[in-house]
Amino acid sequence: MRHTNAGALFVDQYQLTMAQLYFREGLADDSARFDYFFRSYPDYGGHRAGYGVFAGLGPLLEWMATTSFSAIEIDLLRSQRADGQESRFREDFLEWLEAGATFASAHVEGMAEGRVVHAHVPIVTVEGPLALMQMLETPLLNHLNYPTLIATKAARVAAAARGRPVLEFGTRRGPAFGANAGVRAALIGGADFTSNVGMSHLLGLDPKGTHAHSMIQAFLVAGGTELDAFRAYARTYPDDCLLLVDTIDTLESGLPNAIKVFGELRAAGHQPVGIRLDSGDLANLAVESAQRLDRAGFAETSIVVSSDIDELEIGRILSRIDAESLVRGIEPSSVTDRLVYGVGTRLITSHGSPALGGVFKLAALKKDGQWRPTLKSSDTPAKIPFPGLKKAWRLYNANGVATADVIGRPEDAPVPRKPLVGSTSDTADAQRLLPASDVDEVESLHGELFAGGKPSAVPAALDELRRRRSDDISRLPAAVRELVDPAGYPVLMTDGLRDLRASLLDALT
Amino acid sequence: MRHTNAGALFVDQYQLTMAQLYFREGLADDSARFDYFFRSYPDYGGHRAGYGVFAGLGPLLEWMATTSFSAIEIDLLRSQRADGQESRFREDFLEWLEAGATFASAHVEGMAEGRVVHAHVPIVTVEGPLALMQMLETPLLNHLNYPTLIATKAARVAAAARGRPVLEFGTRRGPAFGANAGVRAALIGGADFTSNVGMSHLLGLDPKGTHAHSMIQAFLVAGGTELDAFRAYARTYPDDCLLLVDTIDTLESGLPNAIKVFGELRAAGHQPVGIRLDSGDLANLAVESAQRLDRAGFAETSIVVSSDIDELEIGRILSRIDAESLVRGIEPSSVTDRLVYGVGTRLITSHGSPALGGVFKLAALKKDGQWRPTLKSSDTPAKIPFPGLKKAWRLYNANGVATADVIGRPEDAPVPRKPLVGSTSDTADAQRLLPASDVDEVESLHGELFAGGKPSAVPAALDELRRRRSDDISRLPAAVRELVDPAGYPVLMTDGLRDLRASLLDALT
Repeated sequence: MRHTNAGALFVDQYQLTMAQLYFREGLADDSARFDYFFRSYPDYGGHRAGYGVFAGLGPLLEWMATTSFSAIEIDLLRSQRADGQESRFREDFLEWLEAGATFASAHVEGMAEGRVVHAHVPIVTVEGPLALMQMLETPLLNHLNYPTLIATKAARVAAAARGRPVLEFGTRRGPAFGANAGVRAALIGGADFTSNVGMSHLLGLDPKGTHAHSMIQAFLVAGGTELDAFRAYARTYPDDCLLLVDTIDTLESGLPNAIKVFGELRAAGHQPVGIRLDSGDLANLAVESAQRLDRAGFAETSIVVSSDIDELEIGRILSRIDAESLVRGIEPSSVTDRLVYGVGTRLITSHGSPALGGVFKLAALKKDGQWRPTLKSSDTPAKIPFPGLKKAWRLYNANGVATADVIGRPEDAPVPRKPLVGSTSDTADAQRLLPASDVDEVESLHGELFAGGKPSAVPAALDELRRRRSDDISRLPAAVRELVDPAGYPVLMTDGLRDLRASLLDALT
Repeated sequence: MRHTNAGALFVDQYQLTMAQLYFREGLADDSARFDYFFRSYPDYGGHRAGYGVFAGLGPLLEWMATTSFSAIEIDLLRSQRADGQESRFREDFLEWLEAGATFASAHVEGMAEGRVVHAHVPIVTVEGPLALMQMLETPLLNHLNYPTLIATKAARVAAAARGRPVLEFGTRRGPAFGANAGVRAALIGGADFTSNVGMSHLLGLDPKGTHAHSMIQAFLVAGGTELDAFRAYARTYPDDCLLLVDTIDTLESGLPNAIKVFGELRAAGHQPVGIRLDSGDLANLAVESAQRLDRAGFAETSIVVSSDIDELEIGRILSRIDAESLVRGIEPSSVTDRLVYGVGTRLITSHGSPALGGVFKLAALKKDGQWRPTLKSSDTPAKIPFPGLKKAWRLYNANGVATADVIGRPEDAPVPRKPLVGSTSDTADAQRLLPASDVDEVESLHGELFAGGKPSAVPAALDELRRRRSDDISRLPAAVRELVDPAGYPVLMTDGLRDLRASLLDALT
């Protein structure tokens, strides 16, 4: 049985009180359409992301398929009382909940998990009875916001790593069991492996790790040495031998001892894996270690660097290795091509931008068989959402480079090889013309995700999710992929949608 | 059954590889002592916390009591292979794991959940067989770091709120199901209620909430008005009527409509609860709304303010209300005494400081029946942990104000009403004398937490956890409680511990 706090009650109170109100007012079964989107890319303080990577969908759809109100949950709701008053939820509503409140009636469309996503573009739309769809707000936002945030950060870390492996190490600093969702998202977004054993097995990956400083300490206390500890590790893991060299002194003790053990391993017919640097001046230590390993005949060993690193820190390490290599007259690639990045805290917490502001907004309600678009006003034009039923498309030029995302009414589909005029999403007045060459290919971004009470497709394997992400990133303009000051990626609304929004705004005021 | 990723495999790979190494080297059953502590208070960027609030212990102990390696988990470990090689974990080790790898042999001592905690002071110490205790590292850090971070932030928010209620609203921006742990920690640390329904029921609280903007939109689409929506809400929740007034225009529409409905409620014999402001200039809107509610005869209604607020924003709002009240010639308390704070994203993500750097360090190993202290060196003196078996004490003066925390060997217990000389934790040389008046009372901070495979006490109820927190905070020096630039709270090590550390450092180098 699922825990009380992870099933149908994993929701904010106002969604239940509104659901009861809709029930009492006869609105509960009106069809409603809600959109999930975010308005701004993660901003890490001084630099912001140029694109997002969508993650969390698979677990959300599984949650929807398996969640309903059990007798236990109904009893808990029945126990709620406004101060000293009668039960807050009345019996007729509770019966309605218990009888029918599953998400079997929800129809979900949207983008596939793993894809590159942009601000303002509806990523997921849900359609179904108003009272039930309202109850999806918090679980949906919770399942999608944090993973999308982490997958986005992971894509940036992977970009900074320039093709070298990224290992995710963050579970110990991650948010309770939410760390598992963060690990999954990191693996979708750009991390190659994780140290988290359970998640590795669930996703079919080999878990990665070395040993802790405490292993060396344990040998020292027993009267042994760092070399004894390394030899014990090599005995136990002769084909998996990656040694942490900074417990005593990296260059004076750890590295020479590692080289000695690597020689013994090789003599016994095994191939040593490498060393890990976890403190100090990582750039300098990497250069010095690489040179010494080369001289000792271990040019093929890896150097894992870790210790509070993220995409910017990786960039700084690489620049400093370039500079130091120049001074020493060596090829920087002799160092950088053997680097592996261990990224922990700063990935699993999305350092600098710890929350994605994704929202879930009512877009349309069906009245008398007719969809009616809805709008919420705001003093900030960029916060006024797009009303009504919508679709989204991605445009590509003849080189396969994405040129814009377009949001419009279903009938507004862009026509391939025809110029397109649209309005930018932030200020409705700014028009932008895309020439025909930018509209060489039109991709519809929304597919069916959930219907009939279950996901529309079998859950995508990690490989497939990663392929979507890497394909999409490779099709972004290079300037949008920049880690600092990326170019803005165009998101345009069609004239039809702009006019609809304007007319609804007029009617509101 | 527990999920694969939440049981014994909720661990980092290196803890398992080290456990196997200890097993093969005959060290697995040596008694080991590890300490959990953090080295620096959360730093929110420009301001840091003066103290922490300990949370997450209850769920950790429950996890320890219920976790073991099942056949499923053993099979997963058996499937691991180093590249193209034989199974990474050998059968004898897997048999040992399956037969005995529970935490029944762990003895845990430390501080009670909910208490104020300080940098460097061991919060939890675990003792047991080396291989098993090593496997606790990641689950323990994961269970304690994030909740302690959030409880600490919540204490700050509550301090800024000066006794007015704080409502936790962050589940939608929280880290997947880790949000539940964040909600629990927020409630321990300072939040009074949460909107999270499942967690409210688990902890025996009434869940709090209003309604969404979408409720107003739903009525507008159906041809109704904001007033119609408010009336429907009042009909459904006559004794629980808190209205969100910013969907159309707070002062022009929402507030006048709310006042109208409040009048109708009162005429029908009900007491309206209040309004919620969720956008715009919260300070100005609160003053204006308070005046209008007063004039309309609803001086007893609450005003909930929300929208990306945290402790600093609450401070700014209160200053601005003071200034605006002066201009208008009203008592600021006529506004501030009715405020309620809805705090979401910035609490559940610990805005500005999204991770607590708590660590789990090997302190001692038993050899030949004798405990031997262990130490890891570091280039940064503040990162050198305290070796050996330790205890911690809190000292109070005659007014009951905490004067220092002291870390020492078990035999170093401070003597009440005797002056104490200790060294500061960061640089071993800085000595500090506490006069006898600062040692009026000596409290031992460590109690038994877990033994014989189960928690040593029944889990504390939320009320008890909150009482510990508020008692401890009230006994802190006022300067340490400051939200910005708090005074440093003294954490001293005894001369005995200082000498032990120095002698071990000498031996290392």
